[in-house]
Amino acid sequence: MKIDPWNVSGEIDYNKLIKEFGTEKIDSKLLGRIKKHAGELHHFLRRGIFFSHRDMNWALDEYEKGNKFYLYTGRSPSGDMTLGHFVPLLFTKWLQDKFNAELLFQFPDEEKFLFKENLSMEDTEHYLQENMLDVIAMGFNPKKTKFLIDTKHANAMYKPACMIAKKITFSTVKAVFGFDNSYNVGQIFYTAMQSVPAMLPSYLKGKNIPCVIPYAIDQDPHFRIARDVLPKLGYYKPAAIHSVFLPPLTGPSGKMSASDKSSAIYLTDNEKTVRNKIMKYAFSGGRASIEEHRKYGGNPDVDVSYQWLRFFEEDDKKLKGYYDDYKSGKMLTGELKQILADKLVRILNEHQLRREKAKGLIKDFMPDF
Amino acid sequence: MKIDPWNVSGEIDYNKLIKEFGTEKIDSKLLGRIKKHAGELHHFLRRGIFFSHRDMNWALDEYEKGNKFYLYTGRSPSGDMTLGHFVPLLFTKWLQDKFNAELLFQFPDEEKFLFKENLSMEDTEHYLQENMLDVIAMGFNPKKTKFLIDTKHANAMYKPACMIAKKITFSTVKAVFGFDNSYNVGQIFYTAMQSVPAMLPSYLKGKNIPCVIPYAIDQDPHFRIARDVLPKLGYYKPAAIHSVFLPPLTGPSGKMSASDKSSAIYLTDNEKTVRNKIMKYAFSGGRASIEEHRKYGGNPDVDVSYQWLRFFEEDDKKLKGYYDDYKSGKMLTGELKQILADKLVRILNEHQLRREKAKGLIKDFMPDF
Repeated sequence: MKIDPWNVSGEIDYNKLIKEFGTEKIDSKLLGRIKKHAGELHHFLRRGIFFSHRDMNWALDEYEKGNKFYLYTGRSPSGDMTLGHFVPLLFTKWLQDKFNAELLFQFPDEEKFLFKENLSMEDTEHYLQENMLDVIAMGFNPKKTKFLIDTKHANAMYKPACMIAKKITFSTVKAVFGFDNSYNVGQIFYTAMQSVPAMLPSYLKGKNIPCVIPYAIDQDPHFRIARDVLPKLGYYKPAAIHSVFLPPLTGPSGKMSASDKSSAIYLTDNEKTVRNKIMKYAFSGGRASIEEHRKYGGNPDVDVSYQWLRFFEEDDKKLKGYYDDYKSGKMLTGELKQILADKLVRILNEHQLRREKAKGLIKDFMPDF
Repeated sequence: MKIDPWNVSGEIDYNKLIKEFGTEKIDSKLLGRIKKHAGELHHFLRRGIFFSHRDMNWALDEYEKGNKFYLYTGRSPSGDMTLGHFVPLLFTKWLQDKFNAELLFQFPDEEKFLFKENLSMEDTEHYLQENMLDVIAMGFNPKKTKFLIDTKHANAMYKPACMIAKKITFSTVKAVFGFDNSYNVGQIFYTAMQSVPAMLPSYLKGKNIPCVIPYAIDQDPHFRIARDVLPKLGYYKPAAIHSVFLPPLTGPSGKMSASDKSSAIYLTDNEKTVRNKIMKYAFSGGRASIEEHRKYGGNPDVDVSYQWLRFFEEDDKKLKGYYDDYKSGKMLTGELKQILADKLVRILNEHQLRREKAKGLIKDFMPDF
């Protein structure tokens, strides 16, 4: 298992990650508090897809005192967005709606340029434009959501980034990210830019505002640094809530990678492509023959179609039905794939319609600075 | 001898620096070429105060082909400006006038914040405002001079800085600046920001424009990196022309430091302060008694008043007179101090009058971006 903000590989043991990263498991008490305020629990919470956190109880304490938190998440533009990126965005949208929260959405358009040898600034600019449409299509409230694009909003970001950077040594980034002397000075500085949105509203307004960051757990090292540094500058530690990874289409574990075309479904894939990819590549938990499958049943715990339905089928009863029928052998892998394909085609059709309408809306998400 | 952009100490051997840094001595042929275009030679050139260069012959070749260079220099705001800072500015102004050159003037207002433990961003903002007045008071042409303030013009600078940063490893800054793992990530990134003005006009206009950087030789390590990296991005190597340091008031060698109040004269010091400092602190090349001085003569080569007159008395005949009279013992240290004080009071009075008028002019020096 290898997990850092730029690489995820191997079989992922999420309980071990909680221990290694020093986060807390989301327990029933925290779920109860969230439900009390939200009126319901998102299926990502019911199913442990968001499974870990830092200081969410503190953020809710503050919320209950009337000191509302804002949300901060982001997307580093380096390719077309996949269903893997969809997961934290869906949850962030739900948090925004349920907690009536402001959202600062960072597009660190220099990050992947600095980390990928062959990615140019023209490439990241192209993907930035595309990715903004996908984010807007999620339905975030433009009145409560502002985009923060590192190279375009550097007038607002570079100075606080330097304030943060002054508190981070090369020894720290070496230890936290595993960098060595061959890393470039942009990579070394970058984590300071990723910390900025966790304090920028407090910095600009001159008062401390709690921040909650929903993200896939691989981004945690950046926020460990942010949580270490921000109090030294007089700001709150940001709270965080972490998701597991959507597994790649081709295997039961790991993280979907946008650069592995067969393991990923893109938010812009059309119906035919989606159906083809699932039928061709989705890793099956079925048996060697239909006869064996009918007799011994399939294994939904490794079947990627079932695993994905845990992310995308909101109805618990339906999901349980799929689980039971697949496990008993009543349902074949092909049928489960069909159900997943139908579900995703519906979700992506709707997304793509909203994405079309998003084209005129980018300016509504731009901050004043 | 220790020379880097943040520390200068020890006896400085400028010929050794030329060798160590790999620059070229300004020779009579280059002086002849400059004189041909400028119509005269600045006394800093006549006297070897600007003594070293990189690629100035190339910059003049391009100039002669009609491919005019622009000038780039700067000031890192961290204190009030001294006569030491005045030297490269005076020369830059002369170059601007004689070569009708555009000037990009950088105020890297994050640099000293990152390098000095106790300097705050409020401090650098204060000194930025003060230092801008001193720079404007030098008489730069506002139509041909633009200020570039790192934290305020980061929208224009951060993206090209990342393009440069991608080509600089930690190994490089370690070797060039002597950094170790305890340096902060802002310090490590900073040299990329100092390289930006050496390519920004070319980057913005989409065509290669030669750049000439006049500076005191301690800044050379930054531009060694810039000269290494910019061609990799398709830009010219910047040319450079280097000055020696104005010696501190208190000693014949080293560099005047703005933080050592007794060794520095500030551009805002009033007449009384200037006269007091010179009378009290100026290191003397005189003898132990007036009798001995009259008999054996003084040593103008270590006398700081004479050394400073080499910088500030433009008239070669007068300067030679001071040298001869001091060396022969005809002139006493007190008389030489008086001559220097009179000269500096005149220069600073004029500067301070122009500085008063500069207060309404800052906006004229701000770039469009």
